[in-house]
Amino acid sequence: SEFARPLLESGVKVLDLSADFRIKNPDVYKAYYKEDHPAPELLSESVYGLPELYRAKIAKARLVACPGCYPTSVILPLYPILREGLIKHDSINVSSMSGVSGAGRKIDLPYIFPECNESLRAYSPLRHRHLPEIEQELALSAGAPEIKITFIPHLVPVNRGIVSTITAEASAVFSKESLSIAAKIYKNEFFARVLPEGRLPDSKYVESSNFCDISYLYDERTGRVIAISAIDNLTKGAAGQAVQCLNIMLGVDEKTGLV
Amino acid sequence: SEFARPLLESGVKVLDLSADFRIKNPDVYKAYYKEDHPAPELLSESVYGLPELYRAKIAKARLVACPGCYPTSVILPLYPILREGLIKHDSINVSSMSGVSGAGRKIDLPYIFPECNESLRAYSPLRHRHLPEIEQELALSAGAPEIKITFIPHLVPVNRGIVSTITAEASAVFSKESLSIAAKIYKNEFFARVLPEGRLPDSKYVESSNFCDISYLYDERTGRVIAISAIDNLTKGAAGQAVQCLNIMLGVDEKTGLV
Amino acid sequence: SEFARPLLESGVKVLDLSADFRIKNPDVYKAYYKEDHPAPELLSESVYGLPELYRAKIAKARLVACPGCYPTSVILPLYPILREGLIKHDSINVSSMSGVSGAGRKIDLPYIFPECNESLRAYSPLRHRHLPEIEQELALSAGAPEIKITFIPHLVPVNRGIVSTITAEASAVFSKESLSIAAKIYKNEFFARVLPEGRLPDSKYVESSNFCDISYLYDERTGRVIAISAIDNLTKGAAGQAVQCLNIMLGVDEKTGLV
Amino acid sequence: SEFARPLLESGVKVLDLSADFRIKNPDVYKAYYKEDHPAPELLSESVYGLPELYRAKIAKARLVACPGCYPTSVILPLYPILREGLIKHDSINVSSMSGVSGAGRKIDLPYIFPECNESLRAYSPLRHRHLPEIEQELALSAGAPEIKITFIPHLVPVNRGIVSTITAEASAVFSKESLSIAAKIYKNEFFARVLPEGRLPDSKYVESSNFCDISYLYDERTGRVIAISAIDNLTKGAAGQAVQCLNIMLGVDEKTGLV
Repeated sequence: SEFARPLLESGVKVLDLSADFRIKNPDVYKAYYKEDHPAPELLSESVYGLPELYRAKIAKARLVACPGCYPTSVILPLYPILREGLIKHDSINVSSMSGVSGAGRKIDLPYIFPECNESLRAYSPLRHRHLPEIEQELALSAGAPEIKITFIPHLVPVNRGIVSTITAEASAVFSKESLSIAAKIYKNEFFARVLPEGRLPDSKYVESSNFCDISYLYDERTGRVIAISAIDNLTKGAAGQAVQCLNIMLGVDEKTGLV
Repeated sequence: SEFARPLLESGVKVLDLSADFRIKNPDVYKAYYKEDHPAPELLSESVYGLPELYRAKIAKARLVACPGCYPTSVILPLYPILREGLIKHDSINVSSMSGVSGAGRKIDLPYIFPECNESLRAYSPLRHRHLPEIEQELALSAGAPEIKITFIPHLVPVNRGIVSTITAEASAVFSKESLSIAAKIYKNEFFARVLPEGRLPDSKYVESSNFCDISYLYDERTGRVIAISAIDNLTKGAAGQAVQCLNIMLGVDEKTGLV
Repeated sequence: SEFARPLLESGVKVLDLSADFRIKNPDVYKAYYKEDHPAPELLSESVYGLPELYRAKIAKARLVACPGCYPTSVILPLYPILREGLIKHDSINVSSMSGVSGAGRKIDLPYIFPECNESLRAYSPLRHRHLPEIEQELALSAGAPEIKITFIPHLVPVNRGIVSTITAEASAVFSKESLSIAAKIYKNEFFARVLPEGRLPDSKYVESSNFCDISYLYDERTGRVIAISAIDNLTKGAAGQAVQCLNIMLGVDEKTGLV
Repeated sequence: SEFARPLLESGVKVLDLSADFRIKNPDVYKAYYKEDHPAPELLSESVYGLPELYRAKIAKARLVACPGCYPTSVILPLYPILREGLIKHDSINVSSMSGVSGAGRKIDLPYIFPECNESLRAYSPLRHRHLPEIEQELALSAGAPEIKITFIPHLVPVNRGIVSTITAEASAVFSKESLSIAAKIYKNEFFARVLPEGRLPDSKYVESSNFCDISYLYDERTGRVIAISAIDNLTKGAAGQAVQCLNIMLGVDEKTGLV
């Protein structure tokens, strides 16, 4: 944010890859990042840089806050079923697995090879710092004042890739056709791909790409909807998103530099 | 089961590592295994070989059905909180990650190295064949006629290890002290270890051991209880369990051959 | 070869990714592949598809035999020092490490994940079937009637990548400047990169690329030259080589489709 | 060494896991470790803690210098063929691959998971600090004043394990029976196992054990002897060696605590 203000004042458009402009509510920002927001007056203007949700706004934006990998892997699969009202808002559980590059190039004991290899572990299970922006966007997707979810990330021994597995109770309006109707919301999206029935996302199939693969399932036994997504955190995280948003802002083919 | 009957008739005690005697209800067996149960008259006699739940019965059993890795990783963390009535029965979601040896030494395309390495994927997401025995034991733990859960296993690139992450809504009787009370149920168990607050299970810390590490958390924001477990599927699955049960049946130290 | 002949007869140029036309001597072919060569009359015409050695011939060829991954990783680093006469021909030792995709998509016990992960092993240590084409090209590089080497491949748990470490005794003409003179042979090559002093090849830096990174070192203590190379076997093996040769045959930029 | 002297003076026997007492020549020590040896008067007394070579001396020693993982993996396979005079002393080439725990629990960029996973790389190719103790012991094995070798270690993505592949020219006394005669030198060793013909060492088969598996091969085409060894660097390195030596010093079963 210390760069964003002067850049905007000098007439330059800004794509922010940090978390500074993702959260609209400065109080929530403070609760998770432990300091006052450095430029609260810009929050209302900034656009959340997820093209599948905000393409039109991104095209006209001066300031775009590009979401990172976990939010992308959770918001993209949930957006269609929340928009269609298919699940109960207070029943969402997310279990995610992330490769080690998700921590950045961090040099610390938990990330050295012998600690990660042959290791499966949950971490930051209740208050991961990406939780507030996820919940903000889920509420906006649903048109609800607030949505709270349980989000449990895990560290697993791959370099790249996030798989998020989401369960939620089907709502009263849910019917047999609901999932295919929701899937159609992405039918014109190049990078968000709802897989045909019988196939499930695999991080290996989106490696080094900007794709987000999604499967929807309905569990008749328990009345739950299951959504599973796979992305490569090093592309369809902040970086790939930023290129896609930049293309939209420049009016060029959205896929430029990404395929 | 083709061996169990003649062995029992000749007076030999039987520890069964197959799935044949784990499910009490032959109709459920047929629904999941696609054939009539081969020896239904033995079902009522067989004891589910999870020492933490059935030690006394195992000690006197003629026929013990040793549970495999997924059921162990799900039932052990849920048993204490179900027995104490701390969670709502219809709100249980399980997301598990398993190493590739969980498939046995299977020679098939999905299991060759380049398909598994750098790959994260869900599989058998709604009707895994271990689901019925898990649900049977959870219902017995809770003293309920039936419990249905959502169980989503994932394949991840480690040789050994399962981590199961479980969420469920806290029940009306849940209070701040509930989790530490539940944890005490295992205080005299050597192999089921509830970790101190602030630490989370890691499959690496139970590798090549018969331990099951467990953490309990409460998410105030959503009112959910989280239970996370880690085992080595090659020991605290059917094999280690069988040794532990054998020790109990022989009246020797339960840890013999396991530490 | 059953396709090559009719295709050539109908006027089509052929890029062969099999091993059929790599070995010039049909007797050597028979010794390693256990059958008579199916089209010996085409052997003298076929060009070994390594652009760094045979660019001009490839440009005019009707039949190009594209070398696979191990030969590429051994011939490319040895070619300059053999051409310059810097090493003794009977002193060459090669130790290579290959990722599991080097075996193709083979479904067999040695290649399933739990057999490969956490495993380091030599295989086919004395008569690997790629040895004869390597020796043929080394002799041609040196202008010698014959060169025999010791070649020991190893299987290591990565998906992609080969690193070959080669030692040989310096010849009488070797001097301090020799290695930098040899390195200049590749100074106009885009895909064969001799690294600056102090850096060593790493398969990770050539992953998903058509590059071959090479380091030359001189061990004063023992009088040996060391050459180390790294490639991605899935690109700078037969496949990437074929694209590069095709570009040369078509007269388009050699890098087309490869960067 | 700052602890060794006072301990020895107080009558305590010392097993040193550091490198301080492995090298007999203080000048060589200084050349590799860049400082004067801190206790040169103890060097002649210290015994190199490789039981297969020095069992009798270890039994009576006051000060044992336990060799680390690379020296163990190189000296053990070479000792029998050097003692038998089967190879030319100036023709030894060693290429080793080591898992990441070989670097200790080092927290540094080259060792974080995303740098090691999917990476194969040589390092310290000419003057690894374990080279002098390897050469000292090879010379002693051969009864030669000096032996110089080329030693090229590689870092590969496994947690545990070293495989060393060694080539050397057969000497004039070498005959068909030589290798099986050399192999018999270890016939009464429990931890050094020469594999039957047709099998090759695999680090996975010695994981978490104190075994050193060895294969000998003769390459008729080039007249070279090949020796390949596999150990688990975390056991049959300094640690397992120290336990084995301690058992010998105490006069108890050498395998105590190791199987």
